[in-house]
Order: sequence, then C-alpha cells, then structure tokens
Amino acid sequence: MNNKNESVLIIGAGLCGSLLALRLAQRGYKVAVYESRPDLRKVAISAGRSINLALSDRGLKALRLCGVEEKARKICIPMKGRLMHDALGNTFASNYSGREGEFINSISRGDLNALLLNEAEKHKNVTIHFNQKCKKVDIENNIAFFIDEETNEEFSVTFDVIFGTDGAGSVLRKSYISERKFLFSYSQNYLNHGYKELEIPGDKNRNHQISKEYLHIWPRGDFMLIALPNMDGSFTVTLFLSYDEGEFNFNNLTSEETITKFFEQEFPDALALIPNIKEEFLNNPTGPLGTVKCAPWCYKNTLLLGDAAHAIVPFYGQGMNASFEDVFVLDEILNQGFEDWNSVFKAYQKARKKDTDAIADLAIDNFYEMRDHVANPLFKEKRKIEMDLEKHFPNQYFSKYSLVTFNEHIGYEEAMKKGRAQDKALLNLIADDTVQTHENMTKEELKTILELVIDQTNEILAKDSVAGLKI
Amino acid sequence: MNNKNESVLIIGAGLCGSLLALRLAQRGYKVAVYESRPDLRKVAISAGRSINLALSDRGLKALRLCGVEEKARKICIPMKGRLMHDALGNTFASNYSGREGEFINSISRGDLNALLLNEAEKHKNVTIHFNQKCKKVDIENNIAFFIDEETNEEFSVTFDVIFGTDGAGSVLRKSYISERKFLFSYSQNYLNHGYKELEIPGDKNRNHQISKEYLHIWPRGDFMLIALPNMDGSFTVTLFLSYDEGEFNFNNLTSEETITKFFEQEFPDALALIPNIKEEFLNNPTGPLGTVKCAPWCYKNTLLLGDAAHAIVPFYGQGMNASFEDVFVLDEILNQGFEDWNSVFKAYQKARKKDTDAIADLAIDNFYEMRDHVANPLFKEKRKIEMDLEKHFPNQYFSKYSLVTFNEHIGYEEAMKKGRAQDKALLNLIADDTVQTHENMTKEELKTILELVIDQTNEILAKDSVAGLKI
Repeated sequence: MNNKNESVLIIGAGLCGSLLALRLAQRGYKVAVYESRPDLRKVAISAGRSINLALSDRGLKALRLCGVEEKARKICIPMKGRLMHDALGNTFASNYSGREGEFINSISRGDLNALLLNEAEKHKNVTIHFNQKCKKVDIENNIAFFIDEETNEEFSVTFDVIFGTDGAGSVLRKSYISERKFLFSYSQNYLNHGYKELEIPGDKNRNHQISKEYLHIWPRGDFMLIALPNMDGSFTVTLFLSYDEGEFNFNNLTSEETITKFFEQEFPDALALIPNIKEEFLNNPTGPLGTVKCAPWCYKNTLLLGDAAHAIVPFYGQGMNASFEDVFVLDEILNQGFEDWNSVFKAYQKARKKDTDAIADLAIDNFYEMRDHVANPLFKEKRKIEMDLEKHFPNQYFSKYSLVTFNEHIGYEEAMKKGRAQDKALLNLIADDTVQTHENMTKEELKTILELVIDQTNEILAKDSVAGLKI
Repeated sequence: MNNKNESVLIIGAGLCGSLLALRLAQRGYKVAVYESRPDLRKVAISAGRSINLALSDRGLKALRLCGVEEKARKICIPMKGRLMHDALGNTFASNYSGREGEFINSISRGDLNALLLNEAEKHKNVTIHFNQKCKKVDIENNIAFFIDEETNEEFSVTFDVIFGTDGAGSVLRKSYISERKFLFSYSQNYLNHGYKELEIPGDKNRNHQISKEYLHIWPRGDFMLIALPNMDGSFTVTLFLSYDEGEFNFNNLTSEETITKFFEQEFPDALALIPNIKEEFLNNPTGPLGTVKCAPWCYKNTLLLGDAAHAIVPFYGQGMNASFEDVFVLDEILNQGFEDWNSVFKAYQKARKKDTDAIADLAIDNFYEMRDHVANPLFKEKRKIEMDLEKHFPNQYFSKYSLVTFNEHIGYEEAMKKGRAQDKALLNLIADDTVQTHENMTKEELKTILELVIDQTNEILAKDSVAGLKI
C-alpha cells in the first residue's frame, strides 16, 4: 500500500466519494471513481431530494485538510441559530452557541459536490466515470461488476483496493451480506416518519422572504416543518410527518383540500410563503428516514465509508460532516505507517466506529428535540442558561450541541457522553429549583451555576462508571 | 377471526410453534403445523446444539395456561444459583434469589419439545407435518410455499392466517424483507464470541459428578465456560470464546495440543471431567451468538412470534421463556375481542415489543456479567446484600435478576428499568462506603440499607425522567 502505483477504485462520486478521491489523489494514488448517476454538473438534480445541507466544523476540518475550505465557504450561508415558529405565527430565536463565530452553514449539495468533483479532476491521477452502476463486488478478489447505464453493457474491473462510498443503499455492503464470508452485523431502522421537500421561493429581487440567518423550525410535537436558506433567495422547506399515525399523516394527506387544511391549521405563516404547495406536495416524493449501522466495515482490501457504513437521520445536521470526517480520520490512519490496506482498514474502524454509532443515536435524539422539546419551557430555560454560560465562560462551558458541532477535535462519542451528562445535570438543577434565573444574570451568579453543573456532571459520570463496574 | 373454522398455519414446530399450536387448538382453531426437520421424537438430535435450556417463571406461566406445567416440571432439574469456579479450582456459590422456592430449571430442549408436540397432537383440530421446508410466503395472499425434504416435491398451501415461529432464520421474516411491501426495520448483531458444546458425562451410576443444584460458571474475563445438568447425570458444557481475539480463540484452537493447553491453563478442574474433550472440541460445531430485532412483526394476516421476531443471546436464560411468554401475551390479546387478525397482531406487537427489546439488551448485559463481573468484589458484595434483603424483606426487595426471572407479572422492560436503577443505586452506595456490611447483619441494619436503596433508586429514576423531559 506504500506503492503509490496501486490502483484504487471508489464506488460512488457523491460528497464522500468525491472528497476521498481528492484526498487519495493528493496522497499520490491512482484513483478511479465510478458513479451510477450522470454527471451532476451537466444535468439537473431531481426535485425534492435534500438539496441543501448543514456544513459545520467537522466537515470544514476535512475540507481544510484537502485545501478546499475557502472555496466551500464562498457558497455557504451562515445560520447562527434556530428560529422557532408557533402555530399563531409568533417566533423566538435560540442560537446554536453563546460564543462568537460559532454557526452552521446552509450549503447546496449539488454545488458542493460539483466543487469537489472539479478539484478531484484537476489531478492527473484521477479518472471519474459516470453512468456506471455497480452491480456487485467480488470481495475476495477485488473485482467490481458494473453496467453502463447508457449502453447497458456489462463489464468488470479489478483494482488493488476498493472503497464503497455508494451511500445508504451501498452495493459493496450488500456484497458483504450476500457473499457470506464472515458474520456481518447489520441494522436498518426506520422512523415512523417520512419527509417531503417544498419550497419558499425568493422574492422578486431574489432576496430571502424570512431571515436567512436561521434554520427555521415549526415544531408541533408529533411532526414539524423546517427551512434552510439557499443562495438564490429561496428556502428549502422539509415536512417531517408520520406515515400513518395522528390526525394528519402522509397516507391521508392525498387531496389538495386536506393538504391545505393541514397547513392552514398548523403552519399558516409558512403556507403563505409556499405558492406551489399543492403541486409540490402531490408531486414531490415522500422519503423514508432510516439509520444504518453495520460491522465490520472492511473485508480484505475493501472498505465502506460514509453513508454506506453509517447512514443517519438528518436531525443533527451531521450526515455529510460525519462522512467528511471519515476521510479525515482515514487520512490520519494512513499516516501511521501500516504495512497493508487491511490493517489500515481495521485500525480505521477501531478508531472511528464508536463515533459514528454515537452520532447516529444523537441524530435520533434530535428528532425528538426539534419537533417537541424546543417548545418545552424546561428545555428553553436550559438553552438560555447555556447561551449565557458559553458567552461568559467561552473556554469552560460547551453545550452538547457545541461539543458535537463545534468541537471537532473530540470524537462524537465523547461529545455524546459528556453532553448527555451535562444536559441531565442542568435540567435537574432547573427542575428542582437549585438553579434559578432572572433577567440580567451577573457573572458571579452564572459562575455559581457553572460550578454546580460541572460538579453534578462529574458526579453523574462517576455514578454511571460505578454502575458499569468500570472502576 | 371469531369464526373457529378459520384455518391457521404455523411454520415451525420448535418450542414456540408447538406451544402456539397447543394453545390455538385449545381455543378451537383448525391448526396445521409445518416443520422443516424430521420429527424429533423419532430421530436423534445432532450433537452440540443447545441441548438444554433454563426454564423459569415466565415460561412456566405460559405452560400453566396450556395445562402442561406439571408435566414439564417432571423433567426439570432445579438450579438454585450459580457456582463459580476460579482458575485454581476454588468455588463459591451465589444464589439466584434470597427467597425460598425461587430457582430456575435445567430442561432438555428435545424432551420439552416432544412433550409439547404430544400434547398438541392430542387435539383433533391439529395436524403436524414434518420434513416440509418453507421456501417463502406470499404475505399479500396468505400463501406459503414448501418443499418436501424427502420427496423434493414443491407445493403451496393457502391459509386464513399464518404464524412464523420458524426461529432466528425465519423464512416468513425473510419474505417481509424480500417482498418490500413496507419499510421493515431489521437488525442482526453478532457478538465477537461464538460457542461450542462439550460434555461432562455422568458417573458409572448415572449420577452427577458435580453439584446438579447449580448452574456452573468458570468466569475468565474475556471468555467463560458454563455447565447445566441433564437428567441422565451428565452436564452440557458450553464454552463462550472469541473467534479471533485474545491469546486463545476459536480460530487458533485447532490442534489437540493447543486445546489441551488452553483447558489445562484455564479450566483444569473442568478438563478433568470432560473425557472426550479433543474429539468434541474438534468435531462439534462452533455456533454464532446473535441478536435479531425487527419491526413490524406483522403484515395483514401474518405474524412473527418467538425467535423469528426476536432472537437473543442465551446469557439470561430467557430465550425460550420469552417465546413462551409471547404465546401467553397473544392469548391475552385474543381475549380482548378484536374483530380481525391484523388488529390482534398490531395490538400484540404494541403490548409486547418493548419487552422483547428489553430482554435482548439484558441478555447482552449478562454476557459481561457472567464472564467477568461475577468475579468482581463490588459485584459480589452487591449480590450478597441482595440475598440478605430478599431473605429478610421478601415482599419488599427484588433484585434485577429476580424481577426478570421470577416476577412474571411485570414486563421485561419494567424489570430492566427498575433493576438497572436499583443496581446503580446499590453499587454506588457500596463504592462510596455509605453501605458497609459484616458477618451477621441484623435485620435493623438491613432495613437501613433497604431504605437507602429504595430512596436512591427512586431518585435515579426521577432524574432520568427529567433528563428525558418526561415531566
């Protein structure tokens, strides 16, 4: 593997595959990328399929490694917090961080993917082949079988090493299952909710009709609507709703009349901004929300990366960031001087899997947080205190959200454990009235709260440790 | 479904299928059972495949419902606790309960299955067909496709309702996946350990060579040996060991020399009792240890039951008990007067799934408890206190083990939540020296401990509730 003439196959030229191609090209490998879809730089992307995403510090860290951070930032729209809309049209804001300069970024999936493909193609040792659909992989002999989607011609290619960055429905992962060479732990778990994308267009001057500084949320307990800004003045709106439970659900919202009634009742302010609601609702697809975990991620000279290894639900805005961070972590392992690819892959899985398992669980937690908890008085009080703590003690307090999103030097698992304990501490301090707040808290008062939270968090972690007999 | 002329197909005549057939026959349905294997009452069962199991209160509750408890008890060997063997051959006992009359039972899988088949066959409205292997199920139209394993003839049968009690590799479950009629959440998770069965034979007089009153454990941290007594004086011994990690593992224990070395070093007292160790080790299969969860369990008039719906690892001795309890819970739902089978099945899943998810997780916890924690001083102290509390306050204290195993009137989920909180409370009280013990504790002293444990347990549950914003 230290022979840079070794040939590398990457299956899938999405966000993860493109960035991996770029990085391996920079490291000098001979890289071929095969993608089932047409070149997205030349054709329009179909409507209603997650056209924008939230790019944050973990993703930026990987882009920085590959020298493309600045280019990506040029197509970003910073979002400093959530803006909640209640059923009467009232709004309240909740920032993502109390520190200066901590925000997430709305970015177009297509534009970022195109940027990465362009950067990868600048390297002579990279070739990218579109419309080449992988059918299966012979994982014993490193042979991948393809069909050309334009000519229907079938062919196979042999490489020294094969990466599957082919997303949640990964063909390499399916080959791990079907070839039965080893015990393969695998899970696919769907929420009872699906999603549908709608659009708030820009105004006549291509300006945003609502603030572009926020990720907008219409939390309604059992369902919610969110909106992320695009560069052209529009917002991509996503409805998250049960397939079959509750008064309104995807299975019964089938007529223009019920769709209108639902939006008038639940989201009147959003409805006023979505002119094509009926057409979009009836024509855009309803997508499922699933989590995929599996192990092992590798067999011999093959490796799953990104969504192919760990697809997650979108509620923490970390799917793309986790996939980019995969490339970063793999790059670190490649620096460690292993003798062969399989050893690299095993070391990579060992270093990485606990963290992608954690972000999968955190993302599901956030589903409940966004649709429900954000409107809970106790939760709101907690977030208010956290903003104050982060503002006044920027080096001493990091909320769970900040640990996950803005502290890219620690892993997701560490962020989850510490963040959950801290949330539990603070919520209980508020619930039992140990901590009380008022307008204009002094720094001294906040310092007392900080010390209580740190103390209680440590006690929670210590007691959990004893309960796990890890002492 | 209230028409008792409706025809019921049960795929699989294992423990769960046989009991279900018996119960549905008692309720008056026309029941046909199709089993892929030969009639186990007429052929020998292959060696090395979990030939004995632990029957406890949840299983007995279901057998009682069907009027076969007493017959089953006649083939039971009561085990009142664990007997731990250290590497020097020293032993120490730890009972399962401090109350009188609480024990689990070693029972032969084959004998119990035969008993249930005999009881089912006494009903005229039951037919059982052996050597009929199910290939797939058309879940839309209630058609099951079979192959006769003796004649290789293929055929299909149509029934009003179809139950899949066909175990961890369920064909009905595979049909749920392959027919893609709905979003199917599914997981299969393997431990890194496998298992292999060995035998301690009875002595010349068919008496047990070690105490038959205990489940024997040789805990060694990363691996363990256990032994359960059989009626013929023998013990079935099971080694749980990693496939590929540690100095000794299944992948490298391939020669008589290394096998002997491993047992001499780790289990010298057991080795002395296993005369055919080399042959058995080399010839008996190494089995995987997997957990299967899925949802939904039903589609139209079809339902998964037992291992087909929720296969678990064997470390809580609850696999069979959970499957029997499935039949009990389904029977309760059938009493509720639903109009159609699909409503019954949905109500059954709603009532039952949280509990089978819980026992799956508890069983994995117990893997670590049995191979490692049982030898931990803190854990031993906890168990000692729990025995005293259960003895002196039999109506006020129930350990997690007792809640799961002997409290069949509460569900596994409730047992898990309460039991885990209680363990955490007690372990922390011991670890921080709030609770200290000595020989001959007085009832007053124990009462103080009981009150502390109850108080701390409630506090833990309350704080968890606040952390989940469930207030």
